[in-house]
Amino acid sequence: MSTTLTTPVRHVLCLAGSLRRDSRNRRLLRAAATQAPATLNLVVYDSLSTVPLFDEDLEQYEPTAPAGVQALRMAIARADGLIIATPEYNHAIPGVLKNALDWLSRESPQGEVLLEKPVAVLGASSGPWGTRLAQASLRQVLHTCGALVMPTPTLFMANADTRFDPDGTLTDLAAAQSLQRFVQAFGQWMERVAPAAAEPQAAAAALS
Amino acid sequence: MSTTLTTPVRHVLCLAGSLRRDSRNRRLLRAAATQAPATLNLVVYDSLSTVPLFDEDLEQYEPTAPAGVQALRMAIARADGLIIATPEYNHAIPGVLKNALDWLSRESPQGEVLLEKPVAVLGASSGPWGTRLAQASLRQVLHTCGALVMPTPTLFMANADTRFDPDGTLTDLAAAQSLQRFVQAFGQWMERVAPAAAEPQAAAAALS
Repeated sequence: MSTTLTTPVRHVLCLAGSLRRDSRNRRLLRAAATQAPATLNLVVYDSLSTVPLFDEDLEQYEPTAPAGVQALRMAIARADGLIIATPEYNHAIPGVLKNALDWLSRESPQGEVLLEKPVAVLGASSGPWGTRLAQASLRQVLHTCGALVMPTPTLFMANADTRFDPDGTLTDLAAAQSLQRFVQAFGQWMERVAPAAAEPQAAAAALS
Repeated sequence: MSTTLTTPVRHVLCLAGSLRRDSRNRRLLRAAATQAPATLNLVVYDSLSTVPLFDEDLEQYEPTAPAGVQALRMAIARADGLIIATPEYNHAIPGVLKNALDWLSRESPQGEVLLEKPVAVLGASSGPWGTRLAQASLRQVLHTCGALVMPTPTLFMANADTRFDPDGTLTDLAAAQSLQRFVQAFGQWMERVAPAAAEPQAAAAALS
Protein backbone atom coordinates (compact mmCIF):
# COMPACT_ATOMS: atom_id res chain seq x y z
CA MET A 1 0.00 0.00 0.00
CA SER A 2 2.82 2.41 0.81
CA THR A 3 4.10 1.97 -2.76
CA THR A 4 0.77 3.16 -4.10
CA LEU A 5 0.91 6.21 -1.88
CA THR A 6 4.49 7.26 -2.54
CA THR A 7 5.21 6.21 -6.12
CA PRO A 8 3.33 8.32 -8.63
CA VAL A 9 1.71 6.53 -11.54
CA ARG A 10 3.47 7.53 -14.74
CA HIS A 11 1.34 7.96 -17.85
CA VAL A 12 2.85 6.62 -21.06
CA LEU A 13 1.51 7.22 -24.53
CA CYS A 14 2.22 4.41 -27.00
CA LEU A 15 2.41 5.18 -30.70
CA ALA A 16 2.61 2.65 -33.54
CA GLY A 17 4.28 3.83 -36.74
CA SER A 18 1.86 2.03 -39.04
CA LEU A 19 -1.78 2.75 -39.81
CA ARG A 20 -2.72 -0.85 -40.55
CA ARG A 21 -5.48 -2.14 -38.27
CA ASP A 22 -3.69 -5.43 -37.57
CA SER A 23 -0.29 -3.76 -37.34
CA ARG A 24 2.30 -5.95 -35.63
CA ASN A 25 3.62 -2.89 -33.88
CA ARG A 26 0.23 -1.92 -32.48
CA ARG A 27 -0.14 -5.49 -31.23
CA LEU A 28 3.28 -5.21 -29.63
CA LEU A 29 2.20 -2.04 -27.83
CA ARG A 30 -1.04 -3.63 -26.65
CA ALA A 31 1.03 -6.49 -25.26
CA ALA A 32 3.34 -3.96 -23.59
CA ALA A 33 0.33 -2.39 -21.86
CA THR A 34 -0.57 -5.75 -20.35
CA GLN A 35 3.04 -6.25 -19.16
CA ALA A 36 3.33 -2.86 -17.45
CA PRO A 37 3.77 -2.66 -13.68
CA ALA A 38 1.06 -0.97 -11.61
CA THR A 39 3.13 2.22 -11.48
CA LEU A 40 2.86 2.69 -15.26
CA ASN A 41 -0.30 3.43 -17.19
CA LEU A 42 0.21 2.65 -20.88
CA VAL A 43 -2.35 3.92 -23.39
CA VAL A 44 -2.12 3.03 -27.09
CA TYR A 45 -2.81 5.99 -29.38
CA ASP A 46 -4.99 4.95 -32.29
CA SER A 47 -5.44 8.16 -34.27
CA LEU A 48 -2.21 8.66 -36.21
CA SER A 49 -4.28 8.54 -39.39
CA THR A 50 -5.79 11.92 -38.48
CA VAL A 51 -2.41 13.68 -38.70
CA PRO A 52 -2.33 15.16 -42.20
CA LEU A 53 0.66 15.68 -44.47
CA PHE A 54 2.89 18.41 -43.03
CA ASP A 55 2.77 21.69 -44.93
CA GLU A 56 4.42 24.85 -43.66
CA ASP A 57 1.71 26.88 -45.42
CA LEU A 58 -0.86 25.35 -43.06
CA GLU A 59 1.22 26.63 -40.14
CA GLN A 60 1.56 30.09 -41.60
CA TYR A 61 -1.90 30.72 -42.99
CA GLU A 62 -4.22 28.67 -40.76
CA PRO A 63 -5.07 30.06 -37.31
CA THR A 64 -4.85 26.65 -35.63
CA ALA A 65 -3.15 23.36 -36.35
CA PRO A 66 -5.23 20.54 -37.88
CA ALA A 67 -7.36 18.78 -35.25
CA GLY A 68 -5.41 15.52 -35.55
CA VAL A 69 -2.14 17.35 -34.88
CA GLN A 70 -3.59 19.20 -31.88
CA ALA A 71 -4.92 15.96 -30.40
CA LEU A 72 -1.59 14.16 -30.74
CA ARG A 73 0.35 17.13 -29.35
CA MET A 74 -1.93 17.34 -26.32
CA ALA A 75 -1.77 13.61 -25.69
CA ILE A 76 2.05 13.72 -25.72
CA ALA A 77 2.23 16.91 -23.66
CA ARG A 78 0.06 15.31 -20.96
CA ALA A 79 2.02 12.04 -20.91
CA ASP A 80 5.11 11.50 -18.79
CA GLY A 81 6.69 9.42 -21.52
CA LEU A 82 6.24 8.08 -25.02
CA ILE A 83 6.88 4.61 -26.45
CA ILE A 84 7.13 4.36 -30.23
CA ALA A 85 6.91 0.99 -31.99
CA THR A 86 8.04 1.34 -35.57
CA PRO A 87 7.83 -0.89 -38.61
CA GLU A 88 10.59 -0.62 -41.18
CA TYR A 89 9.78 0.59 -44.70
CA ASN A 90 12.63 0.68 -47.19
CA HIS A 91 15.31 0.47 -44.48
CA ALA A 92 13.91 3.50 -42.64
CA ILE A 93 10.95 4.66 -40.58
CA PRO A 94 7.59 4.93 -42.36
CA GLY A 95 6.80 8.28 -43.94
CA VAL A 96 3.61 8.31 -41.88
CA LEU A 97 5.62 8.25 -38.63
CA LYS A 98 8.22 10.77 -39.85
CA ASN A 99 5.40 13.06 -40.94
CA ALA A 100 3.92 13.00 -37.42
CA LEU A 101 7.36 13.69 -35.92
CA ASP A 102 7.80 16.62 -38.32
CA TRP A 103 4.59 18.16 -36.93
CA LEU A 104 5.61 17.35 -33.35
CA SER A 105 9.00 19.02 -33.76
CA ARG A 106 7.41 22.40 -34.41
CA GLU A 107 6.63 25.16 -31.94
CA SER A 108 2.99 25.04 -30.82
CA PRO A 109 0.69 26.25 -28.02
CA GLN A 110 1.81 23.07 -26.20
CA GLY A 111 5.47 23.93 -26.88
CA GLU A 112 7.80 21.56 -28.71
CA VAL A 113 6.21 18.49 -27.22
CA LEU A 114 9.13 16.10 -27.85
CA LEU A 115 11.68 18.39 -26.19
CA GLU A 116 12.89 16.75 -22.96
CA LYS A 117 10.26 14.02 -23.31
CA PRO A 118 11.41 10.55 -22.21
CA VAL A 119 10.95 8.23 -25.21
CA ALA A 120 11.52 4.52 -25.78
CA VAL A 121 11.88 2.93 -29.20
CA LEU A 122 11.12 -0.64 -30.20
CA GLY A 123 9.74 -2.46 -33.21
CA ALA A 124 8.50 -5.68 -34.73
CA SER A 125 8.81 -7.08 -38.23
CA SER A 126 7.81 -10.26 -39.99
CA GLY A 127 11.37 -10.76 -41.23
CA PRO A 128 14.65 -11.64 -39.52
CA TRP A 129 15.94 -8.12 -38.74
CA GLY A 130 13.31 -6.80 -36.36
CA THR A 131 13.36 -3.17 -37.62
CA ARG A 132 17.02 -2.55 -36.75
CA LEU A 133 17.58 0.14 -39.39
CA ALA A 134 14.24 1.82 -38.75
CA GLN A 135 14.95 2.06 -35.03
CA ALA A 136 18.41 3.53 -35.67
CA SER A 137 16.98 6.26 -37.90
CA LEU A 138 14.08 6.86 -35.50
CA ARG A 139 16.52 7.40 -32.63
CA GLN A 140 18.43 9.91 -34.72
CA VAL A 141 15.29 11.89 -35.53
CA LEU A 142 14.13 11.82 -31.89
CA HIS A 143 17.53 13.06 -30.68
CA THR A 144 17.23 15.90 -33.19
CA CYS A 145 13.83 16.75 -31.70
CA GLY A 146 15.41 16.98 -28.23
CA ALA A 147 13.74 13.86 -26.83
CA LEU A 148 15.39 11.88 -24.02
CA VAL A 149 15.67 8.51 -25.75
CA MET A 150 16.21 5.47 -23.52
CA PRO A 151 19.57 4.02 -24.61
CA THR A 152 19.03 0.43 -23.45
CA PRO A 153 17.55 -2.14 -23.43
CA THR A 154 16.73 -2.46 -27.11
CA LEU A 155 13.92 -4.63 -28.42
CA PHE A 156 14.01 -5.82 -32.03
CA MET A 157 11.21 -8.33 -32.53
CA ALA A 158 12.06 -10.46 -35.57
CA ASN A 159 9.71 -13.07 -37.10
CA ALA A 160 6.85 -11.36 -35.32
CA ASP A 161 4.12 -13.38 -37.01
CA THR A 162 5.24 -16.48 -35.11
CA ARG A 163 4.86 -14.72 -31.75
CA PHE A 164 1.21 -13.61 -31.83
CA ASP A 165 -1.92 -15.71 -32.11
CA PRO A 166 -4.49 -14.85 -34.81
CA ASP A 167 -6.27 -12.50 -32.41
CA GLY A 168 -3.09 -10.46 -31.93
CA THR A 169 -2.25 -11.73 -28.45
CA LEU A 170 1.43 -12.17 -27.70
CA THR A 171 1.91 -15.88 -27.04
CA ASP A 172 5.72 -16.13 -27.11
CA LEU A 173 6.81 -16.34 -23.47
CA ALA A 174 10.40 -15.19 -24.03
CA ALA A 175 9.18 -12.23 -26.06
CA ALA A 176 6.68 -11.34 -23.32
CA GLN A 177 9.46 -11.39 -20.75
CA SER A 178 11.68 -9.17 -22.91
CA LEU A 179 8.79 -6.78 -23.32
CA GLN A 180 8.16 -6.74 -19.58
CA ARG A 181 11.83 -5.91 -18.89
CA PHE A 182 11.70 -3.23 -21.57
CA VAL A 183 8.66 -1.53 -20.05
CA GLN A 184 10.10 -1.74 -16.52
CA ALA A 185 13.36 -0.23 -17.74
CA PHE A 186 11.42 2.61 -19.34
CA GLY A 187 9.72 3.29 -16.02
CA GLN A 188 13.16 3.58 -14.43
CA TRP A 189 14.38 5.77 -17.31
CA MET A 190 11.46 8.15 -16.80
CA GLU A 191 12.28 8.39 -13.08
CA ARG A 192 15.93 8.97 -13.84
CA VAL A 193 15.48 11.78 -16.35
CA ALA A 194 12.34 13.29 -14.82
CA PRO A 195 12.46 17.07 -14.52
CA ALA A 196 13.55 18.60 -11.20
CA ALA A 197 9.94 19.37 -10.24
CA ALA A 198 9.35 15.66 -9.68
CA GLU A 199 12.27 15.29 -7.26
CA PRO A 200 10.41 15.79 -3.97
CA GLN A 201 8.11 12.88 -4.87
CA ALA A 202 11.10 10.71 -5.78
CA ALA A 203 12.75 11.60 -2.49
CA ALA A 204 9.59 10.67 -0.58
CA ALA A 205 9.52 7.32 -2.36
CA ALA A 206 13.14 6.67 -1.46
CA LEU A 207 12.42 7.32 2.22
CA SER A 208 9.33 5.12 2.43
CA MET B 1 20.11 19.28 -86.95
CA SER B 2 21.62 15.79 -86.86
CA THR B 3 21.62 16.00 -83.04
CA THR B 4 17.86 16.51 -83.10
CA LEU B 5 17.39 13.49 -85.33
CA THR B 6 19.67 11.05 -83.53
CA THR B 7 19.50 12.04 -79.84
CA PRO B 8 16.14 11.23 -78.29
CA VAL B 9 14.63 13.79 -75.95
CA ARG B 10 14.64 12.38 -72.42
CA HIS B 11 11.68 13.17 -70.21
CA VAL B 12 12.50 13.97 -66.59
CA LEU B 13 9.99 14.28 -63.78
CA CYS B 14 11.03 16.68 -61.01
CA LEU B 15 9.67 16.20 -57.51
CA ALA B 16 10.04 18.60 -54.57
CA GLY B 17 9.90 17.06 -51.10
CA SER B 18 7.91 19.90 -49.57
CA LEU B 19 4.28 20.90 -50.07
CA ARG B 20 4.82 24.60 -49.37
CA ARG B 21 3.80 26.78 -52.30
CA ASP B 22 6.96 28.90 -52.17
CA SER B 23 9.17 25.90 -51.42
CA ARG B 24 12.85 26.62 -52.07
CA ASN B 25 13.19 23.15 -53.53
CA ARG B 26 10.37 23.65 -55.99
CA ARG B 27 12.02 26.92 -57.04
CA LEU B 28 15.28 25.04 -57.47
CA LEU B 29 13.56 22.54 -59.76
CA ARG B 30 11.91 25.30 -61.79
CA ALA B 31 15.34 26.85 -62.23
CA ALA B 32 16.71 23.45 -63.25
CA ALA B 33 14.05 23.22 -65.96
CA THR B 34 15.25 26.52 -67.45
CA GLN B 35 18.87 25.30 -67.37
CA ALA B 36 18.18 22.01 -69.13
CA PRO B 37 19.67 21.34 -72.58
CA ALA B 38 17.31 20.83 -75.53
CA THR B 39 17.71 17.06 -75.22
CA LEU B 40 16.08 17.05 -71.78
CA ASN B 41 12.47 17.91 -71.02
CA LEU B 42 12.08 18.67 -67.31
CA VAL B 43 8.55 18.83 -65.86
CA VAL B 44 7.95 19.82 -62.22
CA TYR B 45 5.34 17.64 -60.49
CA ASP B 46 3.04 19.76 -58.36
CA SER B 47 0.61 17.22 -56.87
CA LEU B 48 2.50 15.53 -54.05
CA SER B 49 -0.21 16.78 -51.69
CA THR B 50 -2.66 14.33 -53.30
CA VAL B 51 -0.65 11.30 -52.14
CA PRO B 52 -2.36 10.20 -48.91
CA LEU B 53 -0.78 8.60 -45.86
CA PHE B 54 0.37 5.07 -46.72
CA ASP B 55 -1.76 2.33 -45.20
CA GLU B 56 -1.36 -1.33 -46.11
CA ASP B 57 -5.07 -1.84 -45.45
CA LEU B 58 -5.82 0.47 -48.40
CA GLU B 59 -3.70 -1.80 -50.59
CA GLN B 60 -5.38 -4.93 -49.35
CA TYR B 61 -9.01 -3.89 -49.19
CA GLU B 62 -9.36 -1.21 -51.89
CA PRO B 63 -9.58 -2.35 -55.52
CA THR B 64 -7.38 0.49 -56.79
CA ALA B 65 -4.73 2.76 -55.32
CA PRO B 66 -5.75 6.31 -54.33
CA ALA B 67 -5.94 8.61 -57.37
CA GLY B 68 -2.97 10.70 -56.22
CA VAL B 69 -0.80 7.59 -55.94
CA GLN B 70 -1.86 6.33 -59.36
CA ALA B 71 -1.10 9.71 -60.97
CA LEU B 72 2.38 9.89 -59.44
CA ARG B 73 3.16 6.27 -60.35
CA MET B 74 2.11 6.84 -63.94
CA ALA B 75 4.09 10.08 -64.22
CA ILE B 76 7.23 8.32 -62.98
CA ALA B 77 6.65 5.21 -65.11
CA ARG B 78 6.38 7.39 -68.22
CA ALA B 79 9.47 9.47 -67.40
CA ASP B 80 13.00 8.44 -68.37
CA GLY B 81 14.36 9.83 -65.13
CA LEU B 82 13.45 11.51 -61.86
CA ILE B 83 15.04 14.45 -60.07
CA ILE B 84 14.14 14.85 -56.40
CA ALA B 85 14.87 18.09 -54.55
CA THR B 86 14.52 17.56 -50.82
CA PRO B 87 14.35 19.89 -47.87
CA GLU B 88 15.75 18.65 -44.56
CA TYR B 89 13.40 18.18 -41.59
CA ASN B 90 14.97 17.01 -38.32
CA HIS B 91 18.17 15.86 -40.01
CA ALA B 92 16.27 13.61 -42.44
CA ILE B 93 13.92 13.70 -45.41
CA PRO B 94 10.42 15.06 -44.83
CA GLY B 95 7.78 12.54 -43.84
CA VAL B 96 5.75 13.74 -46.81
CA LEU B 97 8.50 12.66 -49.22
CA LYS B 98 9.21 9.37 -47.44
CA ASN B 99 5.49 8.61 -47.48
CA ALA B 100 5.38 9.06 -51.27
CA LEU B 101 8.46 6.82 -51.64
CA ASP B 102 6.79 4.18 -49.45
CA TRP B 103 3.86 4.09 -51.90
CA LEU B 104 6.21 4.09 -54.90
CA SER B 105 8.20 1.16 -53.56
CA ARG B 106 5.18 -1.14 -53.70
CA GLU B 107 4.11 -3.45 -56.50
CA SER B 108 1.45 -1.85 -58.72
CA PRO B 109 -0.10 -2.15 -62.17
CA GLN B 110 2.80 0.08 -63.31
CA GLY B 111 5.28 -2.24 -61.56
CA GLU B 112 7.69 -0.99 -58.89
CA VAL B 113 8.18 2.34 -60.59
CA LEU B 114 11.47 3.25 -58.88
CA LEU B 115 13.15 -0.04 -59.79
CA GLU B 116 15.91 0.65 -62.35
CA LYS B 117 14.78 4.28 -62.65
CA PRO B 118 17.61 6.80 -63.05
CA VAL B 119 17.27 9.33 -60.20
CA ALA B 120 19.19 12.44 -59.21
CA VAL B 121 19.10 13.98 -55.73
CA LEU B 122 19.69 17.59 -54.76
CA GLY B 123 18.36 20.06 -52.22
CA ALA B 124 18.24 23.61 -50.95
CA SER B 125 17.98 24.98 -47.44
CA SER B 126 17.98 28.41 -45.87
CA GLY B 127 20.80 27.40 -43.51
CA PRO B 128 24.48 26.63 -44.01
CA TRP B 129 24.29 22.86 -44.59
CA GLY B 130 22.25 22.63 -47.78
CA THR B 131 20.30 19.44 -46.85
CA ARG B 132 23.41 17.23 -46.56
CA LEU B 133 21.85 14.78 -44.09
CA ALA B 134 18.51 14.67 -45.89
CA GLN B 135 20.19 13.86 -49.18
CA ALA B 136 22.26 11.09 -47.58
CA SER B 137 19.15 9.44 -46.13
CA LEU B 138 17.22 9.97 -49.38
CA ARG B 139 19.96 8.21 -51.36
CA GLN B 140 19.81 5.30 -48.95
CA VAL B 141 16.04 4.94 -49.34
CA LEU B 142 16.26 5.23 -53.13
CA HIS B 143 18.96 2.54 -53.29
CA THR B 144 16.67 0.32 -51.23
CA CYS B 145 13.91 0.92 -53.78
CA GLY B 146 16.25 -0.23 -56.58
CA ALA B 147 16.66 3.19 -58.20
CA LEU B 148 19.80 4.03 -60.17
CA VAL B 149 20.95 7.06 -58.20
CA MET B 150 23.45 9.39 -59.90
CA PRO B 151 26.56 9.29 -57.69
CA THR B 152 28.04 12.68 -58.69
CA PRO B 153 27.92 15.62 -59.00
CA THR B 154 26.18 16.54 -55.75
CA LEU B 155 24.36 19.82 -55.26
CA PHE B 156 23.82 21.12 -51.72
CA MET B 157 22.38 24.63 -51.97
CA ALA B 158 23.05 26.41 -48.66
CA ASN B 159 21.72 29.88 -47.78
CA ALA B 160 19.13 29.46 -50.50
CA ASP B 161 17.18 32.60 -49.62
CA THR B 162 20.08 34.74 -50.84
CA ARG B 163 20.07 33.08 -54.25
CA PHE B 164 16.50 33.65 -55.43
CA ASP B 165 14.66 36.92 -56.01
CA PRO B 166 11.26 37.49 -54.35
CA ASP B 167 9.51 35.95 -57.36
CA GLY B 168 11.45 32.73 -56.94
CA THR B 169 13.82 33.23 -59.87
CA LEU B 170 17.36 31.96 -59.36
CA THR B 171 19.59 35.02 -59.56
CA ASP B 172 22.88 33.61 -58.26
CA LEU B 173 25.06 33.04 -61.34
CA ALA B 174 27.40 30.49 -59.74
CA ALA B 175 24.43 28.50 -58.44
CA ALA B 176 22.82 28.59 -61.88
CA GLN B 177 26.02 27.24 -63.43
CA SER B 178 26.21 24.44 -60.84
CA LEU B 179 22.60 23.58 -61.56
CA GLN B 180 23.26 23.53 -65.29
CA ARG B 181 26.21 21.15 -64.83
CA PHE B 182 24.07 19.00 -62.53
CA VAL B 183 21.26 18.66 -65.09
CA GLN B 184 23.68 17.96 -67.93
CA ALA B 185 25.37 15.29 -65.86
CA PHE B 186 22.01 13.70 -65.17
CA GLY B 187 21.33 13.59 -68.91
CA GLN B 188 24.62 11.71 -69.34
CA TRP B 189 23.78 9.43 -66.39
CA MET B 190 20.44 8.52 -67.97
CA GLU B 191 22.21 7.65 -71.24
CA ARG B 192 24.79 5.61 -69.38
CA VAL B 193 22.36 3.47 -67.37
CA ALA B 194 19.56 3.36 -69.94
CA PRO B 195 18.09 -0.12 -70.42
CA ALA B 196 19.38 -2.29 -73.26
CA ALA B 197 16.34 -1.49 -75.42
CA ALA B 198 17.69 2.02 -75.89
CA GLU B 199 21.09 0.85 -77.13
CA PRO B 200 20.39 0.94 -80.88
CA GLN B 201 19.51 4.64 -80.60
CA ALA B 202 22.65 5.30 -78.56
CA ALA B 203 24.72 3.45 -81.15
CA ALA B 204 23.16 5.50 -83.94
CA ALA B 205 23.98 8.69 -82.06
CA ALA B 206 27.57 7.58 -81.62
CA LEU B 207 27.93 6.97 -85.37
CA SER B 208 26.39 10.26 -86.49
